[in-house]
Amino acid sequence: MSVQIPRGTQDILPGKVEYWQFVEQRAREICRAFNYQEIRTPMFEHTELFLRGVGETTDIVQKEMYTFKDRGDRSLTLRPEGTAAVGRSFVSNKMFGNPTQPTKLFYIGPMFRYERPQAGRFRQFVQFGVEALGVNDPAIDAEVLALLMSFYQSLGLKKLKLVVNSLGDTESRQAHRQALIDHFAPRIGEFCSDCQSRLEKNPLRILDCKKDRDHELMATAPSILDYLNDYSKEYFEKVQQYLTDLDIDYVVDPTLVRGLDYYNHTAFELMSEAEGFGAITTLCGGGRYNGLIQEIGGPETPGIGFALSIERLLSALEAEGIELPVETGVDCYVVTMGDEAKEKSVSIVNTLRRAGFVADKDYQDKKMKAQFKAADRVQAKFVVVLGDDELAKQVVNVKNMESGEQQEVSIDQLVSYLQQQV
Amino acid sequence: MSVQIPRGTQDILPGKVEYWQFVEQRAREICRAFNYQEIRTPMFEHTELFLRGVGETTDIVQKEMYTFKDRGDRSLTLRPEGTAAVGRSFVSNKMFGNPTQPTKLFYIGPMFRYERPQAGRFRQFVQFGVEALGVNDPAIDAEVLALLMSFYQSLGLKKLKLVVNSLGDTESRQAHRQALIDHFAPRIGEFCSDCQSRLEKNPLRILDCKKDRDHELMATAPSILDYLNDYSKEYFEKVQQYLTDLDIDYVVDPTLVRGLDYYNHTAFELMSEAEGFGAITTLCGGGRYNGLIQEIGGPETPGIGFALSIERLLSALEAEGIELPVETGVDCYVVTMGDEAKEKSVSIVNTLRRAGFVADKDYQDKKMKAQFKAADRVQAKFVVVLGDDELAKQVVNVKNMESGEQQEVSIDQLVSYLQQQV
Repeated sequence: MSVQIPRGTQDILPGKVEYWQFVEQRAREICRAFNYQEIRTPMFEHTELFLRGVGETTDIVQKEMYTFKDRGDRSLTLRPEGTAAVGRSFVSNKMFGNPTQPTKLFYIGPMFRYERPQAGRFRQFVQFGVEALGVNDPAIDAEVLALLMSFYQSLGLKKLKLVVNSLGDTESRQAHRQALIDHFAPRIGEFCSDCQSRLEKNPLRILDCKKDRDHELMATAPSILDYLNDYSKEYFEKVQQYLTDLDIDYVVDPTLVRGLDYYNHTAFELMSEAEGFGAITTLCGGGRYNGLIQEIGGPETPGIGFALSIERLLSALEAEGIELPVETGVDCYVVTMGDEAKEKSVSIVNTLRRAGFVADKDYQDKKMKAQFKAADRVQAKFVVVLGDDELAKQVVNVKNMESGEQQEVSIDQLVSYLQQQV
Repeated sequence: MSVQIPRGTQDILPGKVEYWQFVEQRAREICRAFNYQEIRTPMFEHTELFLRGVGETTDIVQKEMYTFKDRGDRSLTLRPEGTAAVGRSFVSNKMFGNPTQPTKLFYIGPMFRYERPQAGRFRQFVQFGVEALGVNDPAIDAEVLALLMSFYQSLGLKKLKLVVNSLGDTESRQAHRQALIDHFAPRIGEFCSDCQSRLEKNPLRILDCKKDRDHELMATAPSILDYLNDYSKEYFEKVQQYLTDLDIDYVVDPTLVRGLDYYNHTAFELMSEAEGFGAITTLCGGGRYNGLIQEIGGPETPGIGFALSIERLLSALEAEGIELPVETGVDCYVVTMGDEAKEKSVSIVNTLRRAGFVADKDYQDKKMKAQFKAADRVQAKFVVVLGDDELAKQVVNVKNMESGEQQEVSIDQLVSYLQQQV
């Protein structure tokens, strides 16, 4: 019996992996233009970090974490998201002391959640995320959104909908929280047991409830936007003004909320509106989290960021029918006849590769016709033919597979000949 | 109290991460030239895979694995190395059925071993590895070595020593095994308890013993090279002939062995001979493993590959004093005076970024002098100055930080002006 891949995970294989390479490379380029630098944190952290940084009441922490003890009896958890770990690194490396802030970071890497496997949802998935830590300025909120939109748009995506909201500062959030309690409390008995327990702990999460979403009190629930104090209102207006200045289309949706206490001010989600994209239309979520760094043991530090799944991005590209211009195939395939030619071809191929060409040859002792077939399969641009006759004259026969043209070339001149052809 | 990073792991931070990006990009380019394609397997596998594919008697399996149960009670293990997982994927995706063989794959990613942390040794480390599966041909062994040497040499490393050996085929190995038993058995009582238990199970591993390495029987132990049958001898000679054809320097060392049964024929290690590189001089190990795929449940399939640690590669570069040409710093830093200019600068920076420049600005309401200091800190090539006067005329003042030259440029013309300057 062969060993199977773990349930809910996938291999990313040649033929698909080129798309991953492409979008990750693009993410790196765009982060570079925006002067965000890469950070790589370990795949696992002390479990406590996620209890504090993601929140003990969240589904992630309660149901979805891969938690285990190491051989030193420490409780470790495979990271379910990136922000808490970046925050931990910001604190432990004292980046808050850097003279220029915000500290602008990005990451690309696997995250792990033990969820029920379904189409497009994996237990190991890859997130690209950015975090700007250390400054509270609407211009940074706009910058993060500009980076996000630049990334998606540079890949050709058009059917995007950016939804923004403000959760306000702590004072605004508390006023809104009380209004929610006053609104739901008299009839909380009509809601599910989860919502009943949320009422005092975290009434904002009632608005997220899937079971009760059609209850009449949901539509009439007080909007956070009516409870923003002057500072929060002005902050949100400035963010919107910058988005307009930067030609970024968006809609405001006051029902877009975040359950955790340390989220505040700007919150956003990016949706795909491509037909046939499926039930999960959210491509990316993010927002401001001015309380996180303190929560995990650092100094009071504002922050904002987003995270997106590469898997879902690739699905969105597919739904919009976008073919990424990935490079595949080989430049030269060397076809040989006879043992001596076969042996000589090893160094010919090597010379081509060292000169920067993508080159390959047969290793299965195939007949010439089958070697040509293999060359076709890897979409060779040129086939270099070497038989006993050619070897005696120290030449090869180069065939341009597009034009059909053939040319005898001295082995010594092969690299420079091909350099002229491409 | 802040949460700490897990013991034995590290954050790779800006200032260092650029070297990682550089060498990984180089690895991808060289693999592309050699027509090896990337594969990404999950960070964890069923534990059984490593018991079978790495071997139950190895230190890795016995002492170093991160093994845990998931919420579905499956025993999973964070991958301690790459080959077994690539083999698993080769089998489960039926790559043995592809018409062209070998299947040429590479991977770059984290591996996990619970080892005692020490200088240059981490519990999470990154390996770059290649595997060529499906063909038994000395030319493939040479190709894998050529790829390896191209990679290191392209980074500028010179003080390298490639050591090769042959373990022969199964028949040769068995003859050698018997000779080892005959050699050690009469005096096995003089050896450590580990060696005593190795005598019957795996006498080859006695040669690896660190405790007994000075015992007089070690130096006189029978050499595998004296037990190679004709086929194995010829195979090894051909590999060496190809290495010579490809101008690859190497030495043969018959004491270079691999403990596991499924290793055979070519085995190799690459060492750094740079002074001050430290105790661990092995940069890379690899070899042929014609029995592995069958061991993990697939059809009989030859294979060869190598794995190297990026951490150790970077140490070797440092030991040889090689500075990689990584790109850092920004092209343009926008300095402003006044609120209106500050707000306008958000869209100016955005326009520069969209045009492909690395651009940034101040977000801390710094005075002009401090903004220039920040520009210096990110090694800005150009500083773009915008004050109220400039804003009224819709111009900026562009300063070339290298030459000191200044030029007034209309805001509309800024991108094209800078494009001419670089």
